[in-house]
Amino acid sequence: MVRIEGGVTAAKGFQAAAAAAGIKYEGRDDMAMVYSETPCIAAGTFTTNVVKAAPVVWDRKIVEDSACVHAVVVNAGIANAGTGQQGMQYCEETAEQAAKELSIPMDSVLLGSTGVIGMQLPMDRIKNGVKSLAAALGDTPEDGHKAACAIMTTDTIPKEAAVKVEIDGKTVTIGGMSKGSGMIHPNMCTMLAYVTTDVSITKELLKEALSEDVKDTFNMISVDGDTSTNDTLLCLANGLAGNRTITEKNEDYERFVKALHTVNETLARMMAGDGEGASKLFTCKVIHADTKENAVLLSKSVITSSLAKAAVFGCDANWGRFLCALGYSGAVFEPEKMELSFESEFGSVLVYKDGVTMDYSEELAAKILSGKEVTVLADMKMGDAQATAWGCDLTYDYVKINADYRS
Amino acid sequence: MVRIEGGVTAAKGFQAAAAAAGIKYEGRDDMAMVYSETPCIAAGTFTTNVVKAAPVVWDRKIVEDSACVHAVVVNAGIANAGTGQQGMQYCEETAEQAAKELSIPMDSVLLGSTGVIGMQLPMDRIKNGVKSLAAALGDTPEDGHKAACAIMTTDTIPKEAAVKVEIDGKTVTIGGMSKGSGMIHPNMCTMLAYVTTDVSITKELLKEALSEDVKDTFNMISVDGDTSTNDTLLCLANGLAGNRTITEKNEDYERFVKALHTVNETLARMMAGDGEGASKLFTCKVIHADTKENAVLLSKSVITSSLAKAAVFGCDANWGRFLCALGYSGAVFEPEKMELSFESEFGSVLVYKDGVTMDYSEELAAKILSGKEVTVLADMKMGDAQATAWGCDLTYDYVKINADYRS
Repeated sequence: MVRIEGGVTAAKGFQAAAAAAGIKYEGRDDMAMVYSETPCIAAGTFTTNVVKAAPVVWDRKIVEDSACVHAVVVNAGIANAGTGQQGMQYCEETAEQAAKELSIPMDSVLLGSTGVIGMQLPMDRIKNGVKSLAAALGDTPEDGHKAACAIMTTDTIPKEAAVKVEIDGKTVTIGGMSKGSGMIHPNMCTMLAYVTTDVSITKELLKEALSEDVKDTFNMISVDGDTSTNDTLLCLANGLAGNRTITEKNEDYERFVKALHTVNETLARMMAGDGEGASKLFTCKVIHADTKENAVLLSKSVITSSLAKAAVFGCDANWGRFLCALGYSGAVFEPEKMELSFESEFGSVLVYKDGVTMDYSEELAAKILSGKEVTVLADMKMGDAQATAWGCDLTYDYVKINADYRS
Repeated sequence: MVRIEGGVTAAKGFQAAAAAAGIKYEGRDDMAMVYSETPCIAAGTFTTNVVKAAPVVWDRKIVEDSACVHAVVVNAGIANAGTGQQGMQYCEETAEQAAKELSIPMDSVLLGSTGVIGMQLPMDRIKNGVKSLAAALGDTPEDGHKAACAIMTTDTIPKEAAVKVEIDGKTVTIGGMSKGSGMIHPNMCTMLAYVTTDVSITKELLKEALSEDVKDTFNMISVDGDTSTNDTLLCLANGLAGNRTITEKNEDYERFVKALHTVNETLARMMAGDGEGASKLFTCKVIHADTKENAVLLSKSVITSSLAKAAVFGCDANWGRFLCALGYSGAVFEPEKMELSFESEFGSVLVYKDGVTMDYSEELAAKILSGKEVTVLADMKMGDAQATAWGCDLTYDYVKINADYRS
């Protein structure tokens, strides 16, 4: 497996486009389309929030019921959540327009929205946007990149990743894009992420591969603990790589899963590191936990703690806050037996062991915490389970962005 | 029942004192003592954090095993958590010193600490502090007030409350003080709260009254979602009011519970409103929920949402964030059937109904959200259960305080 440049257009047969539809933002693209002329099978995971955005309701049905999928249409600026029946009607109209422009069935169109909750979509602009998108489709890396930029809201960087892997003597490519900056605490998957691949695989196995992998990738990130109404991860596979179809969990499947994991983890980490107002990626790695469930609880508790996040922002090696967050995670452990370390590109330092503080250099610890990628390593000394969760620091800019989001 | 001025010295026979022991802060009192010459029964609730501070371990044993309690000694600045065996040894030495100064048994002394985790207490200063405290005890409101000030850390105001209630023809008084500003998300009770009363009641019933009431008061507040290692609520009763001892759940018990609730709720609300960096009290009242458990889940989910808290700070009637927080609370409901309103001293406004936004005035909504006490009212239209949770807004100052706490 090798990482390559590119995103949703990296895999064979996938095209993308961006358009400035004027939905909410001025002077920038705010709609994107992903398209495969060859029909795709699709798998998806969606928000667990009781309040589900209209496009989430739409996509779940398509992913479950449709045998083939051709396109995804996404808009930024308005979430189409808390919009009642009207919101569902607008999903139909958007899909209808895309179906007409692309000469594909309406139930082969997936949708995505991100932005303010409660506002209705301006349908004339959306429909014009769909027309522009269909006319602008292209399969270059630049086309994929423009699409990744168009779905951004408070994101500061577009998020793309792609890999190539050899399966059955054929080159299989997986590429993806995602967006997500605030209201990020996925509980199934994250805000919006789209992964395309030319692998040939059964729908059942694609679904299983995706569902399993989100547990270690998109479900392990958090910016602010808020699980959005719109979280959507979709994976489209069109089979153009020409490998013999993966129909069982054999070596081919394992190779595909590993490559998919690399794309998903890369996109997830990028989302965490680009959290609203974030100045750095804040990772918690829990090792030697008694069970995987507890390792997940422990690591997520640390990266979601406001006090831990603020300490990371302030480069303050106040390890008590990290220990405290482990303590209220819900997992049971013996505080006297475990160890806590800080790590970053500037080195590592053991700060807590045997129930008390280590005699470490505060200067070194502060230097380590000033890194761009800060990791808290918690060695529970209980068993063999481990988990890694990704978040970001809590900064003035987070408050600024969110105290004044709609203006 | 009437509210009266005062705090821990309001009830008959209770004395208090403050002292500047120089533990961490300069030029202010940082130790407090509460004392009753008449032996008290004591009830307590403590943090559920797996990592428990040494004084929490100490107090739990005393509350369970000791027939009588005389004193509480509290220090601010250092939490005596993450301090291993040394920390427990320091608890013993502090209690020993207080026992000597006050001529009481060592196992009648309760302890409390709040501040930085991981540092050891400077025992010479603590012991000198205990000496000063014992010499300074007094029963005036001013003595109680000084104690309430001495236990503050990042608090901006001392927290005291007291009520008088007639029980069995006698005047029973309940008074209390508390502190808590950050790392506030109690899961049993909150940071530090001490309630004293002259009621005569059995230990069993005092325990039950306290345990039940924290569910609706201290356990319903959150500043930052972080459950501290030191959370402690203690209630001491010395029986000096002279009422016939409450031994069953009769009318006397109900009167006492109601009065206790008033003191606890007042202290809890004050803690939420004085959360680190807070500019206002942010309340979520959930009505007509299907079960009490769900009402609690829903209301706490809203007041702990970073996005909701930031919107309250920014006076932004972005109701989607509140709906979103209800949606991921874990409680199941139908978003199309419920209603959301904002309320404050400036009026009230219905913002969401029948699954869509109401046509409300943004100007009015912003004005309402600019109040000092902002309430989000969620009417679930499902049943008769309700719950109220108290928090505060998320401000620049929260980040400032916590990015730079130890310096």
